[in-house]
Amino acid sequence: MTFQNYFPIWDKLHPQQQRQLLDALVFRSVQRGTTLHNGSMDCTGLLLIKTGQLRAYILSDEGREITLYRLFQRDMCLFSASCMIRSIQFEVTIQAEKDTELWVIPPEVYQALLEESAVVANYTNELMASRFSEVMWLMEQVMWKSMDKRVAAFLLEEALIEDTCQLKLTHEAIANHLGSHREVITRMLRYFQSEGIVKLSRGMVTILDTSKLECLRD
Amino acid sequence: MTFQNYFPIWDKLHPQQQRQLLDALVFRSVQRGTTLHNGSMDCTGLLLIKTGQLRAYILSDEGREITLYRLFQRDMCLFSASCMIRSIQFEVTIQAEKDTELWVIPPEVYQALLEESAVVANYTNELMASRFSEVMWLMEQVMWKSMDKRVAAFLLEEALIEDTCQLKLTHEAIANHLGSHREVITRMLRYFQSEGIVKLSRGMVTILDTSKLECLRD
Repeated sequence: MTFQNYFPIWDKLHPQQQRQLLDALVFRSVQRGTTLHNGSMDCTGLLLIKTGQLRAYILSDEGREITLYRLFQRDMCLFSASCMIRSIQFEVTIQAEKDTELWVIPPEVYQALLEESAVVANYTNELMASRFSEVMWLMEQVMWKSMDKRVAAFLLEEALIEDTCQLKLTHEAIANHLGSHREVITRMLRYFQSEGIVKLSRGMVTILDTSKLECLRD
Repeated sequence: MTFQNYFPIWDKLHPQQQRQLLDALVFRSVQRGTTLHNGSMDCTGLLLIKTGQLRAYILSDEGREITLYRLFQRDMCLFSASCMIRSIQFEVTIQAEKDTELWVIPPEVYQALLEESAVVANYTNELMASRFSEVMWLMEQVMWKSMDKRVAAFLLEEALIEDTCQLKLTHEAIANHLGSHREVITRMLRYFQSEGIVKLSRGMVTILDTSKLECLRD
């Protein structure tokens, strides 16, 4: 499988545009934990994921984190090239959550296509709208949902992504995903444990009762 | 002043595209309080504001509100035509905060331009990125700022918009802007009053000490 198979608008580009893209493309393998893009400090380019998983998050002045969204195989990361779009006035950090293989499209190459091609510009619109929708979902969670529901939703999502009920997650890591404090998460997980919903051990949360967790979330 | 003067990419459109737009355009005058767009229930079209002020907000299941952003003269409202962009998976309500005059561009007309024109698609990208940036600002406020700072910031913003320190605002209205409860806002404003920062009267908040309020906010 090559870039052509992963880039959804490939067939709609002119041969010359296709050549421009292929000539500029960089393939990268990064290890879990690598920071791929850091706020406004750099303009890395667009990232198209071949395998692996990325996390986009924001940081407070005090170093607190909250995950905005995750990106999986075939997803395109736009905000690592936010320099391309003048009106993007916020900073996200992009980190590899798993070992990841990806293609990097240099921002100046993509920007040239964006300016000349309605197809590329509309694709970019849809990408931005997808991320916007995920952030709006998060906004609703943060505004209207209590932390127990959010922890329940997060554990269920993790179990789905990892395809296991044994989640290798520290309380600190959960807090960083949800924009909360470790102490709050620890208290919540201990309550879940006392209700027989999870079992806690060092660096691990094991889901014992998925349906109770789903009831909590919904 | 006509539509041509308010639509920033007018000069970059072909004569035929200009004609299409002008032929389809609807001019509307709406009263303060009018709901112009209601979630996914309708696809009103793009709104270009000639005079007045709109508010975009989301609603919880329990009827709580939070303001996402405001739109002023010359601003274009994109999410009232969210049916145009498939990946927009959230619902906003758009309401006139003041008597407002605006042009409505029907969604099917704009969508046709969007698909054929890189200029229109890139303009739409910038619009979406602007709103995204405002929502990200709000997310940071909600996540990392305490309610006293947010109330301070809101009162200062209102004073700037209205160009007066005598703000006609109920505690309920402030709660609806900030996604909070009336009781929380009342408690906060009484604290501000006890510190000599504001004076409260029926349906009115008067700012007495702008610099104290700015200190609180920053």
